[in-house]
Amino acid sequence: MDAPPNDTKSCFSWERRVEFCETDAAGIVHFASLILYMEQAEHALLRSLGYSVAPSATRSSPAPSESSVTWPRVHVECDFHAPARFEDLLQIRVGIASLGSKSICYDHSIFLGKQLVATGKMTSVCCEVQSGHIASQNIPTEMRNALSRFLTN
Amino acid sequence: MDAPPNDTKSCFSWERRVEFCETDAAGIVHFASLILYMEQAEHALLRSLGYSVAPSATRSSPAPSESSVTWPRVHVECDFHAPARFEDLLQIRVGIASLGSKSICYDHSIFLGKQLVATGKMTSVCCEVQSGHIASQNIPTEMRNALSRFLTN
Amino acid sequence: MDAPPNDTKSCFSWERRVEFCETDAAGIVHFASLILYMEQAEHALLRSLGYSVAPSATRSSPAPSESSVTWPRVHVECDFHAPARFEDLLQIRVGIASLGSKSICYDHSIFLGKQLVATGKMTSVCCEVQSGHIASQNIPTEMRNALSRFLTN
Amino acid sequence: MDAPPNDTKSCFSWERRVEFCETDAAGIVHFASLILYMEQAEHALLRSLGYSVAPSATRSSPAPSESSVTWPRVHVECDFHAPARFEDLLQIRVGIASLGSKSICYDHSIFLGKQLVATGKMTSVCCEVQSGHIASQNIPTEMRNALSRFLTN
Repeated sequence: MDAPPNDTKSCFSWERRVEFCETDAAGIVHFASLILYMEQAEHALLRSLGYSVAPSATRSSPAPSESSVTWPRVHVECDFHAPARFEDLLQIRVGIASLGSKSICYDHSIFLGKQLVATGKMTSVCCEVQSGHIASQNIPTEMRNALSRFLTN
Repeated sequence: MDAPPNDTKSCFSWERRVEFCETDAAGIVHFASLILYMEQAEHALLRSLGYSVAPSATRSSPAPSESSVTWPRVHVECDFHAPARFEDLLQIRVGIASLGSKSICYDHSIFLGKQLVATGKMTSVCCEVQSGHIASQNIPTEMRNALSRFLTN
Repeated sequence: MDAPPNDTKSCFSWERRVEFCETDAAGIVHFASLILYMEQAEHALLRSLGYSVAPSATRSSPAPSESSVTWPRVHVECDFHAPARFEDLLQIRVGIASLGSKSICYDHSIFLGKQLVATGKMTSVCCEVQSGHIASQNIPTEMRNALSRFLTN
Repeated sequence: MDAPPNDTKSCFSWERRVEFCETDAAGIVHFASLILYMEQAEHALLRSLGYSVAPSATRSSPAPSESSVTWPRVHVECDFHAPARFEDLLQIRVGIASLGSKSICYDHSIFLGKQLVATGKMTSVCCEVQSGHIASQNIPTEMRNALSRFLTN
């Protein structure tokens, strides 16, 4: 799998340049930075739909779609296929592998040109924060409908 | 699984306090910091045996056991069970789930007291760096023998 | 100034090993990691007195001395004298250069053995968080008394 | 100083959105992330001129202007004026306050709309890396000429 898949119509695509502080003494991007890029691409996907992973109270300006839900991550897995280096401009693709009643499983792939750098899966759970306590809840219907356009299956 | 397992004789244990810069706007430690703690505990395990993940050329003082091998990570997976917060003193346990001819699969669990915070598995491949190129190689016999004391199976 | 000063009776001293993720492609610790070590040593100094930089609400267990104050940083300056590398065990010394009615100016120095790696000054302001708003306030008398033992002048 | 200065003809301007992992438990961007944005804007300024802070050997593709120089930082100072939060889109402006024979002193300011968030000064020294050793050297004439367009005085 050394080339981007042909059918990417349901993927969200986001670009990120590798910063110097994200490299390590092996001369390549540190693996945890690649995981952070995957998280950041998820946030960009939500932002593209008018949503934010953070409750409005923590933001300078409210999300277009006001929301009190937050999305703690319960599972992460990644495979690292090729190194990326300082100043490489990476393309991060995110799709939604499955949409549960309370959770989202995202699928990620990171490319440097046609070279596959890393793949990942991450699961987040829809939660409401009330008075400092956190409890899972159903994904709001409107948000579920918006998210479904990124379903990869 | 809310208490540390009884039999930890083959695990390496390491402590890490959550720093403020490692928390996020949700008020808890960011998941990627937990992944970094797992990596750091691996490095502490290797250090306890006189080894380092980094070739000697990149260090101020050579590792007790001189080495030109490095250990790029090819797979990471983590589950997050409970939040940790600023100044929590976490216990990170690392064991070796399997020791291949060229790779190590580590098993991690992070506890806050008796509370399981996160579990993880990470696979690293033994590589040699020569003139800027990297190639996998067999784990040196002496190192394999030293590592086998942390086999969990 | 290539050796630790003789008189360190009023300094708080804290140790930190350089982690792999804190190095960069130049093969040395990234300068921002040294700045984070200085911040972390400040937090350790406060902890040694029973205080925390974070309001109790954000912590798993309350600080021994219950507190609703927080300490946003308003000024940072650092000079970098020598590189540090992966696995170096650094000694970070923190003293208090001046203690205003509402602010603290810390003095930092980082040593690798007798080699001075970095020096810094950081100013934090005592603030109270109420209903999401933040306002400066006088440092509580008891805390000021406790802090005065680390005054370097 | 709550509005961007009128005369910004000699500044390089770069945008950066605050990521979730860059916030802390106080609900705002961690101060060290603002310092990293300043460094990243410097690298973007150099990139706009066809230069890179990293020797070509550590990059996937060589810089348009081949170079073996690197730029260790010897001094950083920052003042923090107002908080920034998750998803804020910040404008980072960089100019060159002075251009020595071997060093550059950059001037930074970070804005959120018209609100000044932080200001900074950072000094880097031109160095050559040879066989793992690092030595200061004169800034190459061609590079000095290119940099002079960002002189703020």
